[in-house]
Amino acid sequence: MGENSRPLDLLNSAKNKTVLVELKNSHSISGKLIAFDVHINITLEGAEEKKDGETIRKLGNVFIRGDTIILISPTV
Amino acid sequence: MGENSRPLDLLNSAKNKTVLVELKNSHSISGKLIAFDVHINITLEGAEEKKDGETIRKLGNVFIRGDTIILISPTV
Amino acid sequence: MGENSRPLDLLNSAKNKTVLVELKNSHSISGKLIAFDVHINITLEGAEEKKDGETIRKLGNVFIRGDTIILISPTV
Amino acid sequence: MGENSRPLDLLNSAKNKTVLVELKNSHSISGKLIAFDVHINITLEGAEEKKDGETIRKLGNVFIRGDTIILISPTV
Amino acid sequence: MGENSRPLDLLNSAKNKTVLVELKNSHSISGKLIAFDVHINITLEGAEEKKDGETIRKLGNVFIRGDTIILISPTV
Amino acid sequence: MGENSRPLDLLNSAKNKTVLVELKNSHSISGKLIAFDVHINITLEGAEEKKDGETIRKLGNVFIRGDTIILISPTV
Amino acid sequence: MGENSRPLDLLNSAKNKTVLVELKNSHSISGKLIAFDVHINITLEGAEEKKDGETIRKLGNVFIRGDTIILISPTV
Repeated sequence: MGENSRPLDLLNSAKNKTVLVELKNSHSISGKLIAFDVHINITLEGAEEKKDGETIRKLGNVFIRGDTIILISPTV
Repeated sequence: MGENSRPLDLLNSAKNKTVLVELKNSHSISGKLIAFDVHINITLEGAEEKKDGETIRKLGNVFIRGDTIILISPTV
Repeated sequence: MGENSRPLDLLNSAKNKTVLVELKNSHSISGKLIAFDVHINITLEGAEEKKDGETIRKLGNVFIRGDTIILISPTV
Repeated sequence: MGENSRPLDLLNSAKNKTVLVELKNSHSISGKLIAFDVHINITLEGAEEKKDGETIRKLGNVFIRGDTIILISPTV
Repeated sequence: MGENSRPLDLLNSAKNKTVLVELKNSHSISGKLIAFDVHINITLEGAEEKKDGETIRKLGNVFIRGDTIILISPTV
Repeated sequence: MGENSRPLDLLNSAKNKTVLVELKNSHSISGKLIAFDVHINITLEGAEEKKDGETIRKLGNVFIRGDTIILISPTV
Repeated sequence: MGENSRPLDLLNSAKNKTVLVELKNSHSISGKLIAFDVHINITLEGAEEKKDGETIRKLGNVFIRGDTIILISPTV
């Protein structure tokens, strides 16, 4: 990545790819990243709540409020 | 969804449909999404508090303050 | 409600009616909604703290700071 | 109160009267309301910390930061 | 105090006097109030951490971030 | 560092170097600092979650929301 | 200090001197104060985590996010 890269560049390049999202309440949700904004509000498609790598709940489309998010990691 | 989709698009498309709302206090509320704003304040119609898929309380019309919301998922 | 309804419309229509207010500290307060602002600061008249549907304390007039509120539900 | 009343009207009418203030840390303080601002920062005169209706500490003049306040209730 | 008094007036009149500061982490600090700003960031001189009226630690000059403060009370 | 240094200077000089990031949930993550913004949102490359100096999870590329961060320390 | 002193004056005068920083997670860090901004984001040089006056970890250069800080005290 270039000299002037910004944090949101990573989210931009992760659009339409699967990401793992960790929330402040210790839950993890994975899904295809559809959209995000400057508050880090995001929407996922095909979202699933995960625990220890297992799917424990299917959520489908989901809007996640930015201030509940700790980190977002594109899964390779 | 298109290249330039934004997180609020999902909420827009969920208007007048049933959504599941998860709150920071671990409670879940489902109901018909009537309105939302940029703070993610929302109003639901026919809202019910849910636990393990069961209705434990009927709330009817309800205003939910955005900063208490973790996620909003349209139920298919 | 119409296509362009906003969350505060529900509060507007609940003015001078009895509402149930749930707070982040798990307390519930009911009373007649007199006023609210964009921060969801509200004032109630004839407010009573409730637990399991019972009145446990009479508060009379009360100002509640918006950032302590989870939800506001007009009681029918 | 009129059609266009605002939440701060209640605080305005409570000036120089005794109010009960409940804080997020579960403490209650009563005293004469001297001043408030839009953040709901307030100052009280003759403030006393209360528990179960008993005075447990005399504070005298006190400035209370708005974001620690849950509710303010004028005592009749 | 006059009709149009504001909460910060109390802090202004407490400048160069000893104040008791209670923090959200339940700690109390007393010291001479040197300065404050609109965020209620303050600086104290000769600050001491107090518990049950006893000094448990001497801090000297200290900057306290406003958002950690519950209340500030001038000690007579 | 000069008279007029600013906190973000340290992050600027740490770009493309390995940093240790400590989060409010007590987790630690190390990785190469790729980007940051004024909210202290950051992105890391080759990120690994650490506990007592051991790697307990590989995260790869990761976006970390600024308001979950306590400190960032360049590792020499 | 003068009539019109401001809280940040204390931090300005503490630049390039050793300060003790107490964090909301109960940790303490000491180090030479290099820079700060209006959010009270700070950078320290030669930072060490302290417990009961003992050094328990050496951090070197560190950026600390302002909203995690309770107080900053220059050590004489």
